[in-house]
Amino acid sequence: MEIQRPRGTRDFLFKEMKERKSVETTMRRIFETYGYSEIKTPIFEELSLFTTKSGEGIKDQIYHFQDKGGRDLALRPELTAPVARMYIKELQKTPKPVKMYYFGSCFRYERPQKGRWRQFWQFGCELIGGKSPGSEAEVISMAAHCLEELGLKNFDIHIGNLGILRNILIDANILGKLQDQVMGIIDKGDIEELEKLLQDIDLDSDSKELLMKLIVMKGDSSIIKDVESLINCNEHACNALSELEKLLESLKAFGFSNYVVNLGIARGLDYYTGTVFEIYVHGLGAQKQISGGGTYNLIELFGGENVESTGFAFGFDRVMDALNKQEKSIEIERSVKVFVAPIKNDLKLKAFDIAQKLRKNGIPTDVDLVGKKLKKILSFADSMGINYVVLVGARDIEEGNVTVKDMTSGEQEIIDLEDIIDTLKSKLMI
Amino acid sequence: MEIQRPRGTRDFLFKEMKERKSVETTMRRIFETYGYSEIKTPIFEELSLFTTKSGEGIKDQIYHFQDKGGRDLALRPELTAPVARMYIKELQKTPKPVKMYYFGSCFRYERPQKGRWRQFWQFGCELIGGKSPGSEAEVISMAAHCLEELGLKNFDIHIGNLGILRNILIDANILGKLQDQVMGIIDKGDIEELEKLLQDIDLDSDSKELLMKLIVMKGDSSIIKDVESLINCNEHACNALSELEKLLESLKAFGFSNYVVNLGIARGLDYYTGTVFEIYVHGLGAQKQISGGGTYNLIELFGGENVESTGFAFGFDRVMDALNKQEKSIEIERSVKVFVAPIKNDLKLKAFDIAQKLRKNGIPTDVDLVGKKLKKILSFADSMGINYVVLVGARDIEEGNVTVKDMTSGEQEIIDLEDIIDTLKSKLMI
Repeated sequence: MEIQRPRGTRDFLFKEMKERKSVETTMRRIFETYGYSEIKTPIFEELSLFTTKSGEGIKDQIYHFQDKGGRDLALRPELTAPVARMYIKELQKTPKPVKMYYFGSCFRYERPQKGRWRQFWQFGCELIGGKSPGSEAEVISMAAHCLEELGLKNFDIHIGNLGILRNILIDANILGKLQDQVMGIIDKGDIEELEKLLQDIDLDSDSKELLMKLIVMKGDSSIIKDVESLINCNEHACNALSELEKLLESLKAFGFSNYVVNLGIARGLDYYTGTVFEIYVHGLGAQKQISGGGTYNLIELFGGENVESTGFAFGFDRVMDALNKQEKSIEIERSVKVFVAPIKNDLKLKAFDIAQKLRKNGIPTDVDLVGKKLKKILSFADSMGINYVVLVGARDIEEGNVTVKDMTSGEQEIIDLEDIIDTLKSKLMI
Repeated sequence: MEIQRPRGTRDFLFKEMKERKSVETTMRRIFETYGYSEIKTPIFEELSLFTTKSGEGIKDQIYHFQDKGGRDLALRPELTAPVARMYIKELQKTPKPVKMYYFGSCFRYERPQKGRWRQFWQFGCELIGGKSPGSEAEVISMAAHCLEELGLKNFDIHIGNLGILRNILIDANILGKLQDQVMGIIDKGDIEELEKLLQDIDLDSDSKELLMKLIVMKGDSSIIKDVESLINCNEHACNALSELEKLLESLKAFGFSNYVVNLGIARGLDYYTGTVFEIYVHGLGAQKQISGGGTYNLIELFGGENVESTGFAFGFDRVMDALNKQEKSIEIERSVKVFVAPIKNDLKLKAFDIAQKLRKNGIPTDVDLVGKKLKKILSFADSMGINYVVLVGARDIEEGNVTVKDMTSGEQEIIDLEDIIDTLKSKLMI
């Protein structure tokens, strides 16, 4: 009976795993350079954590089940809610701002398709208790820095502020769930559906016209002025616009100006309050969005203090897809470069001894374990990309030597056993 | 409404996370030095993978549920079965031996207690298709090397061979499930229960006496001779003993002799065939076992080829507990050492600019994001263990300078902005 891997999941083998590890390591390094520290939360949470955040509808899209004690649990579909839950329990007394990052897998139950998996990975951060243009600019700059460091090309960071649209809707008395519905459709980008809804809810024609103009406005920082003249003297919307303007000013100080101001970003979720951003990569089709984030108020919703949080996450698998699509060669870490081969089987214990000495001195080394013939060892070593094979022969050993074969050039060199560690270290530049 | 963390799970905060990361990094380095490469399998698998391996009884101890498509899934309780499943699908054609390692979380539903969590981590390896004394010796030596490198003290590696006990039972016609039951009770170490069972099943008195003697035999390699004279000419048991003897010989070549031969190790699971080992740490009480492994035949059971595998896993949480209990100070990676502080709020953009230059040059740096007063910044920086605060003042900046405050000595130094990167790099030895 052959047992299958569950639908929508993946196994990661050696090369892919190394590439993912390399990208993860770069992300960690950059996040830590900005003063973010890693945290980790459980794979499953109480189901209510996610329904409180996203509504009962989320249950259709996630894995949830009862444990043997009758508790309703869910495999986490994202990490913002778990981090907020943890913050309330463990970190409310820590001096603010609290800067943390996470890397972990999340789960959703949906039809598997290109670039969409039932287990997927998120690499993200939360900056809690430091709402300011500077905090938001730091988070956005760090996202850009990561992608630059990874060598990703053709990505755009779109920045908006939900306060502008929301305040126009508030002034037109479109509130609560209805407002969220409008924002949800703007997020989907379905203009036709939006026009129909705005008609159905009887939005006055001035507000409607303004809204339809704003959601397609995109450009550099110069569009701030255009928006200002459009929204005229709507005080709250003007406050949101001024927040956006200050963010762009801070971004300039952070040395990042290569963004697109996009007032059509709506992020679909109710708890976002102001600044929002999304990152797209050209040429990824329907999976072009590799990241999203912004400033939101979730902690109070879960029973904690009234404190805002700025965060974002990379869809790690999508970043990998984007790098692969761009044929970016990902630097992978060293693997084993030395193989110790007994020329005859009765020298295998001597080979173990030599391999072990190399390993204890930090030289990644493999050794023949199963008594292969020398010819087979050499072709095995070759297939593994080994650089040097240490040949252990009876006559050499008697004289206190081994022979080192350079697998690239084919050249062989007799080395005194006492010098083998230094010789290989210098050849391998360890 | 405050939402709780699920029972038996943990959140890992900054310091603990760094300690775990440090131990993980050491384990990775050692495993890779021995030529093992990382793989990753999904968090959940088909339930049948684990019932096939361990019987229907396992369902009482694990998290299992139906997904929306009616599939029976289980959160993995261990990683050997998933790796075997993956091997069959992906790696049967790879040149053998295949050497791989994994680090991931596993889940079991049991009463949470000291050192036992519902989500826990395993760090382990599988060497597939290379059954030999050398392979087994390599795996055991690597486990020892890891623990030495971590600075763990007072651990014992107990080594046995199931073939000795099993063949004595076979000769006494104790077969199948009954044999497994006997082995299970030996594994539990319950002598009274064992004596009762052996009486119930009418084992002949010679075999019974032999069994009771063997399971308490522990010592260095010299006990092999004692065992040999005890088991006399039982051919199959003698083969197993000779396997054990060869393993000890190989271990000597690997430079590891500090083991305890222990014929009472039974590992409780049916698919172990020969060599088994367990690692205990003194002073950990009921949780003293931090690792277990051996050679087994699982791949054929899942529908793959007839190939044996040698593997083991560290209970990662128990290794952490053991290190903490021994008050081993775990080296944790550098965190941020520089903080950029504007003396007045109107210099914050300049501070962002300087912080960003340092970060882009690989200096981990934090910066005031929320307009704190200088006094507060200094005490915040102090609480974070910052070494140098870069003070950004109006007069300094006019002259192209900043002031660097050494938080340890309290000394201040005026530095030309053009030299700030080099100065900090040299102070921090980056």
